[in-house]
Amino acid sequence: MQIIECIPNVSEGRRGDVVESIAAAVREVPGARLLDYSADASHNRSVFTLAGDAAALKTAVLAMYERALAAIDLRSHSGEHPRLGAVDVVPFVPIEGTTMNDCVALAKEVAQEIATRFGVPIYLYEEASSNPARRNLEDIRRGEFEGLAAKMASAGWAPDYGPASPHPSAGASVIGARMPLIAYNINLNTSRIEVAKKIASAIRQSSGGFRFVKAAGFELKDRGIVQVSMNLTNYEKTPIFRVFETVKHEAERYGVSILESEIVGLVPAAALTACAEYYLQIAGFSADAQILENKLRQAPWTNAE
Amino acid sequence: MQIIECIPNVSEGRRGDVVESIAAAVREVPGARLLDYSADASHNRSVFTLAGDAAALKTAVLAMYERALAAIDLRSHSGEHPRLGAVDVVPFVPIEGTTMNDCVALAKEVAQEIATRFGVPIYLYEEASSNPARRNLEDIRRGEFEGLAAKMASAGWAPDYGPASPHPSAGASVIGARMPLIAYNINLNTSRIEVAKKIASAIRQSSGGFRFVKAAGFELKDRGIVQVSMNLTNYEKTPIFRVFETVKHEAERYGVSILESEIVGLVPAAALTACAEYYLQIAGFSADAQILENKLRQAPWTNAE
Repeated sequence: MQIIECIPNVSEGRRGDVVESIAAAVREVPGARLLDYSADASHNRSVFTLAGDAAALKTAVLAMYERALAAIDLRSHSGEHPRLGAVDVVPFVPIEGTTMNDCVALAKEVAQEIATRFGVPIYLYEEASSNPARRNLEDIRRGEFEGLAAKMASAGWAPDYGPASPHPSAGASVIGARMPLIAYNINLNTSRIEVAKKIASAIRQSSGGFRFVKAAGFELKDRGIVQVSMNLTNYEKTPIFRVFETVKHEAERYGVSILESEIVGLVPAAALTACAEYYLQIAGFSADAQILENKLRQAPWTNAE
Repeated sequence: MQIIECIPNVSEGRRGDVVESIAAAVREVPGARLLDYSADASHNRSVFTLAGDAAALKTAVLAMYERALAAIDLRSHSGEHPRLGAVDVVPFVPIEGTTMNDCVALAKEVAQEIATRFGVPIYLYEEASSNPARRNLEDIRRGEFEGLAAKMASAGWAPDYGPASPHPSAGASVIGARMPLIAYNINLNTSRIEVAKKIASAIRQSSGGFRFVKAAGFELKDRGIVQVSMNLTNYEKTPIFRVFETVKHEAERYGVSILESEIVGLVPAAALTACAEYYLQIAGFSADAQILENKLRQAPWTNAE
C-alpha cells in the first residue's frame, strides 16, 4: 500500500466554521485520511495533516482549495505567520511504499491542475523545485502577499505554473515534496531570551549550524522561561539527538540547563528509535530486521518465505 | 486485526533437517507467519518466532508438536541450555488488537489440546499460571528432564493438564502468556569477569535489583571483554534506559565504561521510543497520538471521524 503524507497550510486560524468546512472536504474523499488538524488564532493559520495514496490526495487537495478560495481573502487577512497565499504551502512527503520521486511527480500534477482550474500561480519548492534559487520556502515567501505583485514582475520570479500575476484574493501557492519535518522545541531553565537566541543562532544552518536545522529563540512569558524553537528538515542527516546534545552543551556555556523538550505534532518512529540506538550505544542494530512492528509490516501474510 | 506472537523453544539445535521440518510445519498453516527462527548447536535448542491470530497459532503449535515429538527423544539429548521437554516452552505474547487475557485463554486452550492429543503433561506459567509458586519458568524447570519423574510425584507439582508422570521421550512442556521479552546485552570495556558478575548481581531481581530483570555475567574470550547478559521481562515497568544507566553507573564504580550494548532478536518499537523520550526529556508526549506509524495503524481508512 502506498502512503503519502500531505500537510496543507491554510491562511485561516480564527473562523472555526471555515476551518471545519475545509476539514470536512477532506473527509468526503474516499481513501484520504485526515490524521490531524489545528488552527492557531495568533498566526491566523491552520495546518492539516492528510495521508493516502496519490490519487486520493490529489482529489482532497483540490477540494480543500475550492473551499479555501471561496472563504479567504488575503486583502483583509492579518496574522503573525508569514504567508503568500490563501492556501499557502502544500508539501507531499513519502512515508511507505513510495519514493521521493513519486511525491515530486504528484506535486507537479497537483500544481498544474490548481493553476488551470483556479488560476492561482504556483511555485514549486524543495525536492520539486525547478530552480536552486527557489528551493527554500522562506526565499519564495519573502515579501509575502503584500509584496507578491512586484516580486512576480521581477526577474527570475515567473511562477512554475499559472498566471504571471497574483490571484486577487488568494495570492499564490507553494507546492512541493520534502522529507518528513519534525517540529521540535527545547525549553531552557532561564528567562534570559539572549541565551535562546544565541543557541538558535549556533545550531541553525543559516548562521553556520547544522545543515537541516531552522531555529529561533522565543520567550514563553507566562512560564518565565525561554525556548529554542526548531524545524528539523531531515532527521536522517541531522538527527534529533545531535541537535539536543549540542543545545545542551551550548546552554552550559551560559550556566543554563534544559528543562524539557517537546515534539509538536507527528514524528516518524525512526527519528525516535535512532535516539535510542545512540544513547544506549547499541551496536549492530537493524531497525528493519529487529523492530517487531517493522518486521510485521514488511512481509506479506503468506506462507511463502 | 489481532496479532499474537508465539515463541516456541524446541530442544533440538544440531540436526538441521529436524529444525527445518518444524519450520516447514508452521509455513503450511494459513494465517500463521514464521518471523524468525534460529538453532544453537551448543545449547542444542531452537527458537521459533511466530505471529498470527489465535486460531492460526493454535494450529501451527500443534503441527510443531507433532513433528518435534516424532523426532526428539530427551533420553539421548544433551546441551548447555536447561530443558524439561522436547517442546520446552511456548509463550504467547499480545502485540496488537489483543489483550493479555486473550493470550492466557489461548495458552490454556492449546495446553489442554496438547495434553489430550499427545499425552504430554503441561505446566502453565507467567500470566497463565495457576499457582504463585509455579509462575517462574526457572522454578518449573528446575531439575530438568532428568529430575522430572521425581518432581512430578512430589507435593505441589501435579501438572495443570495431562498425565501425572512425564511423557517418556518428550518430558513435559511449559506453556503460558507473558509480556514481550527483550534479550539485551551490555559489553564492558574490561576483561575482568568479576565486574560483569557484580553488576549482573546488582541489577537482577533475584539478588535485589530491578523487578523485571534477569542477568548474568559472561566472558567474551575472543574479544577480551566481558558482558552483562540480560532478559528484560517487562519493558514498561523496568525500561531499558533505567537498566542501561544503572549498569553504566555501577561500572564507573570499578573504573569501567560501557563499550556498546546489543539487542538480540526482536524488540517492540515502544521499548525504544520510550528511551528517546527519556534522554531527550520530552514533555507531554503521546506515542499513540504523535508517532506517525501508530496514527496510521490505529484508525481505519474510512472517512468517519
